Amino acid sequence: MVSATQSAVSSAKVMQPSSLSADSVLNFARGDPTMYRAYWEKLGDRCTVVISGKDLMSYFSDAGNLCWFLMPELDRAIRRLHRAVGNAEVGEDQFIVVGTGSTQLFQAALYALTHTDQPDDEALPTSVVAAAPFYSSYPEETDFQRSKLYKWAGDAYSYEGEGPYIEVVTSPNNPDGAIREAVVNREGGKLIHDLAYYWPQYTPITRKADHDIMLFTFSKATGHAGTRIGWAVVKDKEIAMKMVKFMELSSIGVSRESQLRAAKILEVISEDCLNPEPNKVVNFFEYGQVIMSERWEKLREAVKASGAFSLPKYTQNFCIFTGKDTDSNPAFAWVKSKEGLNCDNLLREHKIVTRGGKNFGVCPSYTRISMLSPDEEFNLFVERLAAIKGSTTTNGSTY
Amino acid sequence: MVSATQSAVSSAKVMQPSSLSADSVLNFARGDPTMYRAYWEKLGDRCTVVISGKDLMSYFSDAGNLCWFLMPELDRAIRRLHRAVGNAEVGEDQFIVVGTGSTQLFQAALYALTHTDQPDDEALPTSVVAAAPFYSSYPEETDFQRSKLYKWAGDAYSYEGEGPYIEVVTSPNNPDGAIREAVVNREGGKLIHDLAYYWPQYTPITRKADHDIMLFTFSKATGHAGTRIGWAVVKDKEIAMKMVKFMELSSIGVSRESQLRAAKILEVISEDCLNPEPNKVVNFFEYGQVIMSERWEKLREAVKASGAFSLPKYTQNFCIFTGKDTDSNPAFAWVKSKEGLNCDNLLREHKIVTRGGKNFGVCPSYTRISMLSPDEEFNLFVERLAAIKGSTTTNGSTY
Repeated sequence: MVSATQSAVSSAKVMQPSSLSADSVLNFARGDPTMYRAYWEKLGDRCTVVISGKDLMSYFSDAGNLCWFLMPELDRAIRRLHRAVGNAEVGEDQFIVVGTGSTQLFQAALYALTHTDQPDDEALPTSVVAAAPFYSSYPEETDFQRSKLYKWAGDAYSYEGEGPYIEVVTSPNNPDGAIREAVVNREGGKLIHDLAYYWPQYTPITRKADHDIMLFTFSKATGHAGTRIGWAVVKDKEIAMKMVKFMELSSIGVSRESQLRAAKILEVISEDCLNPEPNKVVNFFEYGQVIMSERWEKLREAVKASGAFSLPKYTQNFCIFTGKDTDSNPAFAWVKSKEGLNCDNLLREHKIVTRGGKNFGVCPSYTRISMLSPDEEFNLFVERLAAIKGSTTTNGSTY
Repeated sequence: MVSATQSAVSSAKVMQPSSLSADSVLNFARGDPTMYRAYWEKLGDRCTVVISGKDLMSYFSDAGNLCWFLMPELDRAIRRLHRAVGNAEVGEDQFIVVGTGSTQLFQAALYALTHTDQPDDEALPTSVVAAAPFYSSYPEETDFQRSKLYKWAGDAYSYEGEGPYIEVVTSPNNPDGAIREAVVNREGGKLIHDLAYYWPQYTPITRKADHDIMLFTFSKATGHAGTRIGWAVVKDKEIAMKMVKFMELSSIGVSRESQLRAAKILEVISEDCLNPEPNKVVNFFEYGQVIMSERWEKLREAVKASGAFSLPKYTQNFCIFTGKDTDSNPAFAWVKSKEGLNCDNLLREHKIVTRGGKNFGVCPSYTRISMLSPDEEFNLFVERLAAIKGSTTTNGSTY
């Protein structure tokens, strides 16, 4: 089986943004958030970090802190940003654990919720579920090490297991942008809230999220995917300590260069949100909201022009960050073939690579399309999409 | 149980390098290589990296490469350094896989050597062994996820299992600095060579290492532990691909900021090794060798003055890097109590925190002491050590 990444990699070889043509394969399978680059370019050297050869040498960032590898400036920047945006409760009694992206923290949370010092070899692994359509990487991230602690158990809607379980609640959801709550709600259940997309450019911020374990990632918040910084906001001290232990055993902490840079960039965003000045560019989230909203408008026009596809409907909500009613503009479009065709295959025929519904636990008439590609690619994509005319363009036999 | 790190952390709170006194607790349990800082300070801005807000945004570093998250400049810098030092064979047909420290790569190697697409639920996990004394973190790093793929099976010398196994060969060895070869040598065995300390400051470079999987880490090579960069040199393409897959599932690649900085620093070292100039400071490895040699001399004097301890003996060897006979100056001292006392406890009574023999699979009359602490701490340590006078200073009843 060719994985989503492998196909992303091989297609990336084919496609050079500077040389897009009618023949170019467009890769929209992974959510590589490179479209935000233009914003950071505008900011010039305001976010520049300078690191000399003698800096950041020790393993330790803050030896007195529970999370001993977390840099204090990043801890402060994260808390300040959440307060500026209003998207998460981060009180003094909540712990921040930093990770190599939220991917590593997801696994740290599974470990923390299931590990005991006196393991029972007869005990069954804890079931891990998420409501379909769920993020396509959860099953493999849960199972690849074949742990006796936890095991992927599929769609939360159809979960019938007994005993302890973990439900991952992704809100807004990847792939479909839906606002989610836990669906199993049974005794013995523990929750991990993946809030990677709970930022104003993607969705109205309606309240301060306040859950036991909340995961965020720098990649989706600001577009800096290569930095590999994620963070967890954790209420329970024992759970936070176990997550730190996981990070220690898995990679002895997290790159300090990345932490330094993330701290700098998050501080600049907070500063611009809290102290806007007429001469400054708009703050990052306002910028992101405008871009995402324009893209969704173009996408809806293309879908209408085509007639072969449908998109989810989102309701407007009052956003406490912007202070007005705003639309959802998710980071992915969850596109459905109206005729029930294999939507991923259909788009591949038009040289658009996406990630098909089966990866997300649903039928192949759905597919996920990244909305975060560079402008030139996005524009070519909507052009091609608009030109696909339902069953007249395909006999369906290849699906 | 208080782990080595927890005690390192709590002691680090107590001990402030700027305020060392007769009462200060000295923490030598972890090999935090901060003593190299003075060298990098001397180099001024030659190793400085400047990263602007718009840089390094994508997940992808080199989409066409097998290791798609490895930056090409780091790949080149690693190969050039190994050629300059002569410590490892890194041909065009060998693959470099970058990791968040060699810790993550060790786990990637275990996964790559044991994972199959059609898992047999009845199959026993592959045994992982290393000759005692072995690196104290191998057992926990192998077992913490309770994988069905592999399981720690202890000392390679006493391994009696049948079927496939993995032997980790650490050379020079952590904790005792010994030059090692595989000891099990049975059919079905696979090897991981951990060569973290195979650099000229620690040991004479006697030949180009040329093994299936070789692990190196920036932490021990240059002292930049906070950067969390390690690399594997891998011969087999399938194994390299599986290690890349592990990195993808575990953290979607490796910090690009760290990679950029590691590339810069490794290039400067190679440049100084290959093109020495009279005005330049000596190259990093020569500097390291002088410092380490001075420290070992001081340590031997202290051990002699004390009379309560013994140290391993190392033979001189011809080093192809320096072109002369050189001594081994390991990153850790593997100290034994001559009277068979619990050496870690004995030293703790004198406010010296070390890592006791039991962590390394041997008896508690041994303990491991980091040789990489800052000067001030090291000097106070040898002073205290010299003053410990065998059984006259202790009645042994506390051990």
